[in-house]
Amino acid sequence: MLEKMGKLALNAKEKVELLSTEKKNEALKKVAEGLIRHTDAILAANEKDMKNGQDKGMSQGLLDRLKLTEARIKDMSEGILQVAGLPDPVGEILEEWERPNGLLIQKKRVPMGVIGIIYEARPNVTADAFALCFKTGNVVILKGGSDAIHSNAAITESIRESLKEVAITEDAIQLIMDTDRETTSRFMKLNHYIDVLIPRGGAGLIRTVVENSTIPVIETGTGNCHVYVDKDADLKMALEIIVNAKTQRIGVCNACESLVIHEAIAEDFLPLLRTALLEKKVEIRGDEGVCRAIPESKAASEEDYGTEYLDYVLSVKLVGSVKEAVSHINRYHTMHSDCIVTEKEETAELFLNSVDSACVYWNASTRFTDGFEFGFGAEIGISTQKLHARGPMGLKELTAYKYLIKGKGQIRS
Amino acid sequence: MLEKMGKLALNAKEKVELLSTEKKNEALKKVAEGLIRHTDAILAANEKDMKNGQDKGMSQGLLDRLKLTEARIKDMSEGILQVAGLPDPVGEILEEWERPNGLLIQKKRVPMGVIGIIYEARPNVTADAFALCFKTGNVVILKGGSDAIHSNAAITESIRESLKEVAITEDAIQLIMDTDRETTSRFMKLNHYIDVLIPRGGAGLIRTVVENSTIPVIETGTGNCHVYVDKDADLKMALEIIVNAKTQRIGVCNACESLVIHEAIAEDFLPLLRTALLEKKVEIRGDEGVCRAIPESKAASEEDYGTEYLDYVLSVKLVGSVKEAVSHINRYHTMHSDCIVTEKEETAELFLNSVDSACVYWNASTRFTDGFEFGFGAEIGISTQKLHARGPMGLKELTAYKYLIKGKGQIRS
Repeated sequence: MLEKMGKLALNAKEKVELLSTEKKNEALKKVAEGLIRHTDAILAANEKDMKNGQDKGMSQGLLDRLKLTEARIKDMSEGILQVAGLPDPVGEILEEWERPNGLLIQKKRVPMGVIGIIYEARPNVTADAFALCFKTGNVVILKGGSDAIHSNAAITESIRESLKEVAITEDAIQLIMDTDRETTSRFMKLNHYIDVLIPRGGAGLIRTVVENSTIPVIETGTGNCHVYVDKDADLKMALEIIVNAKTQRIGVCNACESLVIHEAIAEDFLPLLRTALLEKKVEIRGDEGVCRAIPESKAASEEDYGTEYLDYVLSVKLVGSVKEAVSHINRYHTMHSDCIVTEKEETAELFLNSVDSACVYWNASTRFTDGFEFGFGAEIGISTQKLHARGPMGLKELTAYKYLIKGKGQIRS
Repeated sequence: MLEKMGKLALNAKEKVELLSTEKKNEALKKVAEGLIRHTDAILAANEKDMKNGQDKGMSQGLLDRLKLTEARIKDMSEGILQVAGLPDPVGEILEEWERPNGLLIQKKRVPMGVIGIIYEARPNVTADAFALCFKTGNVVILKGGSDAIHSNAAITESIRESLKEVAITEDAIQLIMDTDRETTSRFMKLNHYIDVLIPRGGAGLIRTVVENSTIPVIETGTGNCHVYVDKDADLKMALEIIVNAKTQRIGVCNACESLVIHEAIAEDFLPLLRTALLEKKVEIRGDEGVCRAIPESKAASEEDYGTEYLDYVLSVKLVGSVKEAVSHINRYHTMHSDCIVTEKEETAELFLNSVDSACVYWNASTRFTDGFEFGFGAEIGISTQKLHARGPMGLKELTAYKYLIKGKGQIRS
């Protein structure tokens, strides 16, 4: 079954990659309209998933992620229209040069080909991932979670019907209906058909994909983000950034999970930090110095420094220098987003160049690591690996390049 | 042991990535001189490997790849000097923009970090891979083949000594001395320490790495390259390109392994092809039409079309249209290099845009897929995947980027 889907995807790829921007945008508009028109069918399917979820005793949080409403379907539809409005990166000549032998070499931006997406409970990813991949001339094979299978199937059916209406192959999007582990495992080894696999979900899902896929993966997501308060920091600014990065939205990958504080300002800063964090009901886990200054805090274990809490918990560590801060962060972070607060440019430059993260901030909240906040107009995820793309991935990051070499019969001597 | 090497590499990374271009070039020159100075020690080590190889009954071809001479060491040394002379891509600001909230976002080219290289019998890869990685601010951990272990160790020792002389951490290069399978297998799962793994060698090695590595891999190498002779081809040019692509050097990944010929010119072209290929002692494996026209040819099996022979063998297939040619190539190729010979621009454009290869040629030999022929001045390998880099990889392809975000206390609302 997977083999068959792979073949259909390869066939679809040959057609989708040649579509003009106008044709793709026309199709996206149809798809957006189609979702609205199929609202009833999608809600009915979602009802089934919700009932199964309730029967299984799914948590309120997960049920909320799963739930679709008329308003949420409208949001999905509008998201697709927004993608239609973005510039199409495909086809751009990135570089072009002529060799002494007369060969003209053009480096051209092209679609990635066939993209596999593995995701969890949110059915809106189905529409969202399709729109981003299709806009960039890619074909997608989706593998959603079993909890959302009926919703995902209804959304996919709606999209396929709309594609048909504009005479585009429906196989530009395919959904894997078997949600067992063995199918997922085989899906991750379809190297012959799939060019890249993008997991979207929690740390467990991402680890499974990284460990089992033989297809190239873009690792996304986990963020053990740090804020370092330097001895030359504006303490008021530091406090605002920390409170924002930690509590503006709990449970997202760009939220702050760990603080590093220069000893020289600890005496002044920790009492301020204490007041601000306790007010927000943030539990503090610190080293000795922190525990002394903030009696409410617990002792941090080695494990704490490496933990992405996604909760009202924060680890805090004191250091003697910016270099020590850099070493600590490079040891425990997930290469996502880290920040220094300092008024001294020299210190900031050292930090920016030495902390090995996708996004390194000087005097700003880590919460800005986001495709929309970066101005990309869209986001498929945040890469925490170094190959291909780092940080927020928009449309460009869903493309590859190829070389076109034009000659007049040149041969190698 | 591997864990310890990983930790040393991370420590070295923090220092190497901050080295100035001047300092790196100075070190490369020292390393080049050091190899010459250590010629005797390297030759003595190589002697041991050669003796072991002979005792094991290694083939003449492999022994030749393994053998070092004074001249070959001089070549290695000169190769390093050439890399020292190339521009350093690290540090370039690729893009820079300001957001409406005043955040300044800079996309900066940075070293990849720690690069793992797994390779086979050629000891010169040791020096070559080090030079390319070091020039781009990366640290390397090398895992060569057991057959070359003494040579690799002597070369590595020489490089480490030269680095020490210019006060750069020796751990910029480390060689894994255990060459058993289990060590290799564990090496491919050191995600915490290694940012990217590049296999250099035959198809078997590359498959093993792709199937077993949990570290992001750049797949290199295998090339089932095609030449398509269109109905509007200049037949004389087609013949020259085919002979060059097939026979100028047998056994390289950018050599032609398969021909696709438009039926409309088969009657005129096949007799010419026959004469040219038989003269070069190339065995032809063709479909029915080809076998009829060239009595010396054998019937091609399905497997033949997908085979990278690296030998004096060529598969040949007749097709009725350029579209059929594209479908055939996209089905059997390895996404390396494919060529169309035609005088018609429209046909060429269709082929160039539809054949999904790293390098697509119009009227030129596939043998130009090479970092030096592209003008990169160096080459670490030829990527056949779509993530990160495609085609010849030079210095730029050994780098990643990071985002530096500079603010004045901005927080997200």
